[in-house]
Amino acid sequence: MATATLTIDLNALTSNWRALDAMTACETAAVVKADGYGLGADRVARALANAGARKFFVAATEEGAALRQALGPGPEICVFSGHMAGDTDMISDLQLTPMLNSLDQMLRHFEALPGAPFGIQLDTGMNRLGMEPHEWAAVRDIAIEQGPTLIMSHLACADDPEHPMNPHQLAVFREMTDGLDVPRSLAATGGILLGPDYHFDLTRPGVGLYGGMPYVEATPVVTLDIPVIQVREVAPGETVGYSNTWTAERPSRVATIAAGYADGLIRGMGGEAWVHAGETRCKIIGRISMDMIGVDITDATSDPASVELIGQHQSVDTLADWAGTIGYEILTSMGARYYRRYKS
Amino acid sequence: MATATLTIDLNALTSNWRALDAMTACETAAVVKADGYGLGADRVARALANAGARKFFVAATEEGAALRQALGPGPEICVFSGHMAGDTDMISDLQLTPMLNSLDQMLRHFEALPGAPFGIQLDTGMNRLGMEPHEWAAVRDIAIEQGPTLIMSHLACADDPEHPMNPHQLAVFREMTDGLDVPRSLAATGGILLGPDYHFDLTRPGVGLYGGMPYVEATPVVTLDIPVIQVREVAPGETVGYSNTWTAERPSRVATIAAGYADGLIRGMGGEAWVHAGETRCKIIGRISMDMIGVDITDATSDPASVELIGQHQSVDTLADWAGTIGYEILTSMGARYYRRYKS
Repeated sequence: MATATLTIDLNALTSNWRALDAMTACETAAVVKADGYGLGADRVARALANAGARKFFVAATEEGAALRQALGPGPEICVFSGHMAGDTDMISDLQLTPMLNSLDQMLRHFEALPGAPFGIQLDTGMNRLGMEPHEWAAVRDIAIEQGPTLIMSHLACADDPEHPMNPHQLAVFREMTDGLDVPRSLAATGGILLGPDYHFDLTRPGVGLYGGMPYVEATPVVTLDIPVIQVREVAPGETVGYSNTWTAERPSRVATIAAGYADGLIRGMGGEAWVHAGETRCKIIGRISMDMIGVDITDATSDPASVELIGQHQSVDTLADWAGTIGYEILTSMGARYYRRYKS
Repeated sequence: MATATLTIDLNALTSNWRALDAMTACETAAVVKADGYGLGADRVARALANAGARKFFVAATEEGAALRQALGPGPEICVFSGHMAGDTDMISDLQLTPMLNSLDQMLRHFEALPGAPFGIQLDTGMNRLGMEPHEWAAVRDIAIEQGPTLIMSHLACADDPEHPMNPHQLAVFREMTDGLDVPRSLAATGGILLGPDYHFDLTRPGVGLYGGMPYVEATPVVTLDIPVIQVREVAPGETVGYSNTWTAERPSRVATIAAGYADGLIRGMGGEAWVHAGETRCKIIGRISMDMIGVDITDATSDPASVELIGQHQSVDTLADWAGTIGYEILTSMGARYYRRYKS
C-alpha cells in the first residue's frame, strides 16, 4: 500500500463537542461544512448526532443534500449560503434550512417555498454574508412575521479575544435583534471561548470539534501515518528531490514517503516540516513533490515502515505553523487518496 | 447553486497530448496520477485512450485499480511507487505494471507474481525513487532475465533547460542502460522539451497535458467560475473578512463568492489574487475563508452572477504565482465540491 492512513478518532470528536457544549448554558450545534472539515461529513455528523447534536451547519445546499442522506430525517440542517437560485427543489425535498442573507434571497424563499423553515443571517461588521443593519431595519417586520427558526451572525476576529471587533459586533448584533422572540446565534468555536455574553441561544462550533485552535484544550482527533516506499544511502554532497534544494552534509539515510501536495500537504511547508519515525524526529528534506516526500531518517534507530506526520508529537496546528497558515486549511486539505480509518 | 463550476476541456487535453506526441519520434504515454492532476482520472484517461494513448502512469496501486475500472482491459497501467507490501492481489487481479524501485520490491514481485509484467525505476541523481547505480549493477542481469517492459528514471531539474543536472542525469541513465534490449523512458513534460536526446522509447507527459508550465504552448484545459452569493455596499473605513485585513478606501461594492481554501484555493494567495467579472479585473480582498472570498467589484459594469478565477484571462500558473507555488499544486488541489463539467 502506497497511500497514507488518516485515522479519525470519533470519540475525541464527540468529547470535544460535549466539552464545548458544557461551556455554555444554551444549545450546541455542529458545523460540518467542507466535508466535515475534511474528515468525512457523513461519519462525523452521525457520530455527533449520536452524541446529542440536533442542528448541523453546512456551507452549500449541495453539502446539505449529501448530509441529509447520511443523517436521515430529524436533525435540522442549516445552510450558510442561504437560498441560492436553482436550489429550491433541494431545499424543499431534503428539508434544509437556508440562512437567508439578503433581500433577494428572502424574496426567493418566501415566494418559492412559503411556510418552509428558514433562518436569517445578519452582517454585524465582517461584510461577508448577511443583511446590513439598514436592510434589516427595512425588512425585519416582514421577516419576523414569517417565523424564522434562527437569527445569526458571524464574528470576524473571535480567534483574538482582545480584539475590539468582538464587543463591537456583539453590540451591533444586540441592537439588531434585542426584543425579538427568535432564537439567536453569534458564536462559533472562538465565540464560545469569549464567554456567556456571546452564547445567546445556540452556538456553532466547527474547528474546535476537530481538534484545532483556538480551542487549545481540544482532544486531538486526527492521526496521519505515511508509508515509506524506499530507503537509500545518500553520500555527502549528493542532492535530493526537485531542483536539488537539499544537499547531504553527512552520510545520510533518506526515506521516500508516499504522500505529497496532491494529498493536501502544502508544498510551501517543505523547508520547515518534520515527521516522527517512532520517537525520533526526522526532517523533511528537499521539495515536497506531488506524491512523495523525502525524509532524513539518519538518526532513526531502524528503518521505519511508516512515519507519523500528525499525531501525538505534532498537531494539525504544528503543520499550519510550518506552512504559514491556520489549522483549518490543513484539515480541509486532507487528501482524497488517504485511507480513512474511523475509531469509535 | 453555491458551488463553483470547474469546466474541463477534453479536446484541449487531447490536443496537448497530440502536440507533445508530435514533438518526439517515440511512443507517448500519459501520467494521470493524483486523480488526473485533479481533473478526474477516469474522464481524462478515457479521453486520452480514445486519442491513442496506450500507456498510463499513476502514483499508487490504489489509483491503478480505480483506473483499470475506468479504462477496461487493454491499456497498460504503470505504478510509480512499484510493488508495495500488501499490493500483490491488486497488481495481479487488475493487471497493473509496477515500476520496481528497489531490491526489496524486486524480490517481492518475482516471488509473488513470477512472470507478471513489471518495469524498473532507476535513480539517476534525484535520490527519490529507483535503484542506485551500485544496486542496479548487482541485480541487473537477474532483472533483465525476467523481461521488464520498461526501464525508466526521472529528471529532477527538467523545468530548467539550462540546469547541469539534466545532462548529468542523462549520462548516468545511458551508462546504466546502454546496450540493454529493453524500452527506456526518461522524459516527462520538461524532458520532452529538452530535445531528442532525452526521449528514448517512451515519454511520460503529465502537467503539459493539463495546460500547465513548463509547456508554454499548451492549450488551457481548465476554467473555474465561482458564483456570487451576495453583493453589498461597503463605506470607506469599513473592513471585510476575517481579522479585518482589508479596509475600504472608497465607497465600494463587495461580492461574496462561493469558494474558499476548502476548495483548494490556497489561503496564502489572498493578498495577491484577482478574478474577472466579465472583462473587468476585480481584486480579491480580505482573507480567503474556508468557503467564501470577498471581491471588490466596484469597477464592474454590473453585479455579476459569477466571476472567473481561471479561464481566458488568468491561468493555473497565474494562480500559482500569486500563491508562491507551481501550477501542479493548483491543479491537484482542485476541490471536491466543484461541479465538474466536461467539454468534448
